[in-house]
Amino acid sequence: MSECAFPFAKYPLVTLAHGAGGRFTQQLIRDVFSAAMPDIRAEHDGADLLFPQESAPELVFTTDSYVVSPLRFPGGDIGQLAVTGTCNDLAVCGAQPAYLSCGWIIEEGFSTESLYSIAQSMGNAAQELGVQIVTGDTKVVERGHGDGVYLNVSGIGIRRTASHPELIQPGDLVVVSGDLGRHGTCILTQREDLRLQAPIESDCMQLWPQIERLLPLGDALHCMRDLTRGGLATALAELSETAALQIDVFRDRVPVSSPVASVCELFGLDALYVANEGRMVIFVDPASENQLLEALGPEAKTIGSVGPGEGVIAHSDLGGSQILDLLSGEQLPRIC
Amino acid sequence: MSECAFPFAKYPLVTLAHGAGGRFTQQLIRDVFSAAMPDIRAEHDGADLLFPQESAPELVFTTDSYVVSPLRFPGGDIGQLAVTGTCNDLAVCGAQPAYLSCGWIIEEGFSTESLYSIAQSMGNAAQELGVQIVTGDTKVVERGHGDGVYLNVSGIGIRRTASHPELIQPGDLVVVSGDLGRHGTCILTQREDLRLQAPIESDCMQLWPQIERLLPLGDALHCMRDLTRGGLATALAELSETAALQIDVFRDRVPVSSPVASVCELFGLDALYVANEGRMVIFVDPASENQLLEALGPEAKTIGSVGPGEGVIAHSDLGGSQILDLLSGEQLPRIC
Repeated sequence: MSECAFPFAKYPLVTLAHGAGGRFTQQLIRDVFSAAMPDIRAEHDGADLLFPQESAPELVFTTDSYVVSPLRFPGGDIGQLAVTGTCNDLAVCGAQPAYLSCGWIIEEGFSTESLYSIAQSMGNAAQELGVQIVTGDTKVVERGHGDGVYLNVSGIGIRRTASHPELIQPGDLVVVSGDLGRHGTCILTQREDLRLQAPIESDCMQLWPQIERLLPLGDALHCMRDLTRGGLATALAELSETAALQIDVFRDRVPVSSPVASVCELFGLDALYVANEGRMVIFVDPASENQLLEALGPEAKTIGSVGPGEGVIAHSDLGGSQILDLLSGEQLPRIC
Repeated sequence: MSECAFPFAKYPLVTLAHGAGGRFTQQLIRDVFSAAMPDIRAEHDGADLLFPQESAPELVFTTDSYVVSPLRFPGGDIGQLAVTGTCNDLAVCGAQPAYLSCGWIIEEGFSTESLYSIAQSMGNAAQELGVQIVTGDTKVVERGHGDGVYLNVSGIGIRRTASHPELIQPGDLVVVSGDLGRHGTCILTQREDLRLQAPIESDCMQLWPQIERLLPLGDALHCMRDLTRGGLATALAELSETAALQIDVFRDRVPVSSPVASVCELFGLDALYVANEGRMVIFVDPASENQLLEALGPEAKTIGSVGPGEGVIAHSDLGGSQILDLLSGEQLPRIC
């Protein structure tokens, strides 16, 4: 067991930032969890499983807990989010989601009808993708020790294509699958009770159908990553670190809807750090850019490229540039 | 999607009993979760996974969330309990635990050193069994919306032997692997701050090493079930229902230590309903009883048998008998 390098004296208590998916979460995973559980594969969203049989299917295993607040939001609820989020983690690993589990932690006094409604959202989201929720568990905690419902969905997928940060190469193009920041600003405006002319809907959606259309790209598809907590910027910072390469992105090419841009301006947020639940970044061989963009549809945009060096640099329309690091601190707790 | 038969008007709110593992939990699983998610296989602790490859390994998938309070107790902590509990669910399905995930829901303000200590317990429990914790997730909720740490551990095991309620046959003998009621009374005495001469230690332990020694029994081993929430009585009631057979047990043959018996008497509990975290019941062909008992060791006892009919009947030393049903209501919340 490796020694624990976590600075306990400096951070004696867990803070909300430790759950934000950025710098603090990474430190917790690396210095606390991986130190104590050395088999954890922290560099991607799921872990490859190895079995002795030669012709065994290549399986990918992932888990996510969901503590989103509010439980219901424009465009989805915690049940849909949980099934979608876990399936997306498998999908960006190049695996077709096959089997899911569901673990419920319910607060005493929660409405049984709401429980059924959440379960239905889960069942619908699974059915839509042809994935089976096969096993589950139910725990109830006393009033005041939860927040309605917390969910865990773990998933097993079957590898259909390679997708790994270590496959990213200099010269790769960086593509996002659609406009960014809708899930985070949706949750934020709900929580702040901000009345917009039309509410911002979460982008919560399954990524596997899009990824299935990318399978003909074969080896030209290098790496995919969904853009959840910490947004595009944090995902790119992590990938740049793992791949040991520099990523350049151009802010004016990143699609952001005008309601999302307005909310970001109002709250002083950078849309590149805002969470999404149905968006991914894709690293592709430049020779296959057109094939990729055609398969993804008109929402997808090429936003940058990969080169030798390190770090993520965002170039602005006016010629300035800025280093994008992991999200530091907490932008908005309980986004997922 | 099947229609929902849950009596929402009668039970509009979730109660602690819905998490107790007995009658109310069963109703929630059957009428709420299975109605909305029809692929759930509720009749055993894990689900068999099917893959198209002919020579694919036979995999079993399970999940459990852990909300035990206190987080640390004589004989274990939530980390050890979580790894052990999920591995035991796989083991009693006849599957050797292979891969685990860990999902953390941490309350803001929790000690980072305690977090590391729990993670170490998980790592140690996994290493002891040669199982790998390969993937994880971290969420942090605000102060007052959790209780230190909630854990989810999902697991994948490789089938080594058959074990299913539908394999139980008339004539089978019923064997328990050791003395009952230690985990439940351990948690109870800790929570009530009851000072005993020697504290009752939880029976929290891995079942796979015992089950591996049973593999030579082959087809004579019909079904195994771990005795967690709701204890032996609830497990037998569920199994009797699924197998559509009668189970007779003899109270004076059920091993219960004298400290456990005293605590049960003090609190008016029936040891047959008290939770265990390292005990199982085994249904075996009578011709293999001796081989089974030898493999399990001197703690294991034959306590009853299976016959045609229905329900579970407990016979007392004085000749009386009593029907054992599923646990109804809540004996002790947050036992696991």
